[in-house]
Amino acid sequence: MSLNETLREQRDALRAALQEEDHDTLDRLLPQLRSADIGEILEDLFEKEEDIPVCLALLNAMPIERRANVLGYLPREEQLAVAESMSDGVMLSILEEMSSDERADLFNLLGEDRRELLLRRMAHQEREDLKLLASYEEGTAGAIMTSDYVAIPLGMTVSKAMMRVRQTAPDAETVYQLYIIDHEGRLAGTLSLRQLMVARPGAMVDDLMIRDVIRIPVDEAQEEVARVVARYDMLAVPVVDADEKLIGIVTHDDAMDVAQSEATEDIHKGMSIGALEDGVSRVPLWSLYRKRVIWLVLLVFGNLFSGAGIAFFEETIAAQVALVFFLPLLIGSGGNAGAQAATLMVRGMATGDVGVKDWGKLLGRELLVAGSLGLTMALAVAPIGVMRGGELVAMVVAMSMVIIVLFGSLLGMCLPFLLDHLGWDPATASAPLVTTLIDASGVVIYFSIASAILTSA
Amino acid sequence: MSLNETLREQRDALRAALQEEDHDTLDRLLPQLRSADIGEILEDLFEKEEDIPVCLALLNAMPIERRANVLGYLPREEQLAVAESMSDGVMLSILEEMSSDERADLFNLLGEDRRELLLRRMAHQEREDLKLLASYEEGTAGAIMTSDYVAIPLGMTVSKAMMRVRQTAPDAETVYQLYIIDHEGRLAGTLSLRQLMVARPGAMVDDLMIRDVIRIPVDEAQEEVARVVARYDMLAVPVVDADEKLIGIVTHDDAMDVAQSEATEDIHKGMSIGALEDGVSRVPLWSLYRKRVIWLVLLVFGNLFSGAGIAFFEETIAAQVALVFFLPLLIGSGGNAGAQAATLMVRGMATGDVGVKDWGKLLGRELLVAGSLGLTMALAVAPIGVMRGGELVAMVVAMSMVIIVLFGSLLGMCLPFLLDHLGWDPATASAPLVTTLIDASGVVIYFSIASAILTSA
Repeated sequence: MSLNETLREQRDALRAALQEEDHDTLDRLLPQLRSADIGEILEDLFEKEEDIPVCLALLNAMPIERRANVLGYLPREEQLAVAESMSDGVMLSILEEMSSDERADLFNLLGEDRRELLLRRMAHQEREDLKLLASYEEGTAGAIMTSDYVAIPLGMTVSKAMMRVRQTAPDAETVYQLYIIDHEGRLAGTLSLRQLMVARPGAMVDDLMIRDVIRIPVDEAQEEVARVVARYDMLAVPVVDADEKLIGIVTHDDAMDVAQSEATEDIHKGMSIGALEDGVSRVPLWSLYRKRVIWLVLLVFGNLFSGAGIAFFEETIAAQVALVFFLPLLIGSGGNAGAQAATLMVRGMATGDVGVKDWGKLLGRELLVAGSLGLTMALAVAPIGVMRGGELVAMVVAMSMVIIVLFGSLLGMCLPFLLDHLGWDPATASAPLVTTLIDASGVVIYFSIASAILTSA
Repeated sequence: MSLNETLREQRDALRAALQEEDHDTLDRLLPQLRSADIGEILEDLFEKEEDIPVCLALLNAMPIERRANVLGYLPREEQLAVAESMSDGVMLSILEEMSSDERADLFNLLGEDRRELLLRRMAHQEREDLKLLASYEEGTAGAIMTSDYVAIPLGMTVSKAMMRVRQTAPDAETVYQLYIIDHEGRLAGTLSLRQLMVARPGAMVDDLMIRDVIRIPVDEAQEEVARVVARYDMLAVPVVDADEKLIGIVTHDDAMDVAQSEATEDIHKGMSIGALEDGVSRVPLWSLYRKRVIWLVLLVFGNLFSGAGIAFFEETIAAQVALVFFLPLLIGSGGNAGAQAATLMVRGMATGDVGVKDWGKLLGRELLVAGSLGLTMALAVAPIGVMRGGELVAMVVAMSMVIIVLFGSLLGMCLPFLLDHLGWDPATASAPLVTTLIDASGVVIYFSIASAILTSA
């Protein structure tokens, strides 16, 4: 049985037991399930108003540690609902059990009054740590880092460092990468647990550590953090403040989550959809509407240029209405080829495969590929031109196809570079924007060629 | 200075030193650079035919271990060029130094004669391991897994297991997750190094290990492996054969690379571009042409339906040529809204946010959102209708807009589900395909409404 099937069965069984309030089955099933899976099941259940009390009851029956883990997998809205169902005392224990980055996220969801109340009941150190972590702007390294790392002071021996690792093991997010700090808390070096384990117990960490540590400034964009972790195959990357003081680490799993959500955002941007704050099946309808409508309406006006082109050539069209037959085909083909070219550039720039310096080389390549594409598509459309309007029309249509596809592809290819040069996000060169621009140009190209050839003939 | 700036400076300095054959600077710079960065610089240099000897000379001057590391970061073509410049003896040492998954990839690039020669000079164990790893189909768990993991037999004590970890540390891909196997090599459990470190030295691993281990069958698709690693925040996931024998692990960094390239593939598919075997700036032109042309030509024929719709309504158009003014605008808007809806579903399905069971709920949501979008866009276009053709034309255009946007969005939303149901990849519902379908439907909707209203008036 595949992993997915096992999972699905476990989920269905849990859901059934929950809805039937079958406590024996629940007690048997729950310990077998992973927190990520319980989180997903609860997320589904939370959608129906009447199931919320069941969810809360289930969560509140779990041991504190498990509850904290599951909570970390729930979306914001549900986290808030759960938090509101708990007393301050329970809430404090849960917060204590959570990893410091998830703790800060949950804390930021609460109302100001509750935040104040909870802070007042925390120990000083814990309070300061939470306040600091909760203060970083969303989308930066600070907002995704954790403060649960193993710091080793300069001058410690290997055996003492090992002892420190053993002590920190239950709380640290990772104990496999150690960070060596000087007496002012500045990052001085790093050492993997692997290196520590094979070192002589009496050696000093100073002599073993790697001094040239890749580090991230706390205000760096989160997608850059993900790129660095991926590029250097890191288990975790240290985060420093303006004074080079070590203030946190971002672990590989959080970097992977960021990479995933950034990819989703880029895919949506490619269709002129703004960044959604949640999955498409869960985001509020009003928000989904807003994120889609802006560009759609802007492009309605962009499309007026196509209309204007058509109005300009109204006489040509009236004289030979058969020309309209090929209009959607020609501008559609140009739009498709152009959207392909733009998408290839935008994604290449996002992954680092394409740089601004490659522009000239890529232009040459696109010229060759788009020229071949245009010729192929002209060959495909020419026989239809002969059938519908004779050889002259076929010539007009084939010529238009080559020029529109070539022009559209070059436009689509160059637009991301132009936007980047202007300081805009290259991903603004979305398929809808590119096709709208090409539609208008295509209309002009097609009818210009048509009136030139057909009126002279 | 930011990480990126430091990197860029180091790269420029290295590039200059290389081209000027300034060996002192090279000797100073090289040890400071990370293998990933040297790999990138070499990748750039390799592009110019005349720089290839310089690259090879640089690589061949590096210590074997470094050379093996850098080689792992080069694209296939360059790996092959380097491999061909090395004697069999050097090649053997390099292969030995590489991690087992990269070794298998490089090995698969070589010609059959060379493979045979190299295999014959390897030790038995090494040869069998390489042959096995090189035999798995690309795109599966087997092709991305490594055989350098720490296996601990059942019945071992904690202190002995620690000793085993220390011995394996230099070679294993990760020593932080240990896999416990029975006497037939079957995966019996797992234990993190962290757990091992805080355990009583005399305890048995059997009593400490987690028995319910998430495992991946060797023929599982690589994107599923990446999803599992991301979902459960794993450092590595074990891979088993049909007999549940442990045969490898996939580490978090390789899973992240897979997730990244799968996202790129999905983005390209969204524009009807087939999977590229390399980055857009490096893939051969012929391959780029082929991957783009197939759907473009298919969609030329798809666009004939729009033409047929126009031909059918030729009289309506001839009677009122002004209607053509709004044609690109209406079908373009429908296409944009539909492509948005399709993209939201396809990405949701890829990340697991959207399941087939959500179809009904999502249809209801799309109905509401698309209805609102259509109304908004109709409001935007109506005044232009009044200006260009009077109130009656405005009514035709506004009504068409609502219906085309609503229809297009629902079509775009449902198509991925339909494709999935038919056993196709939902990502086939690309923007070009969706807009082509909506273009044809839009033509019919628009001119039907126009002829109904304008002829009756």
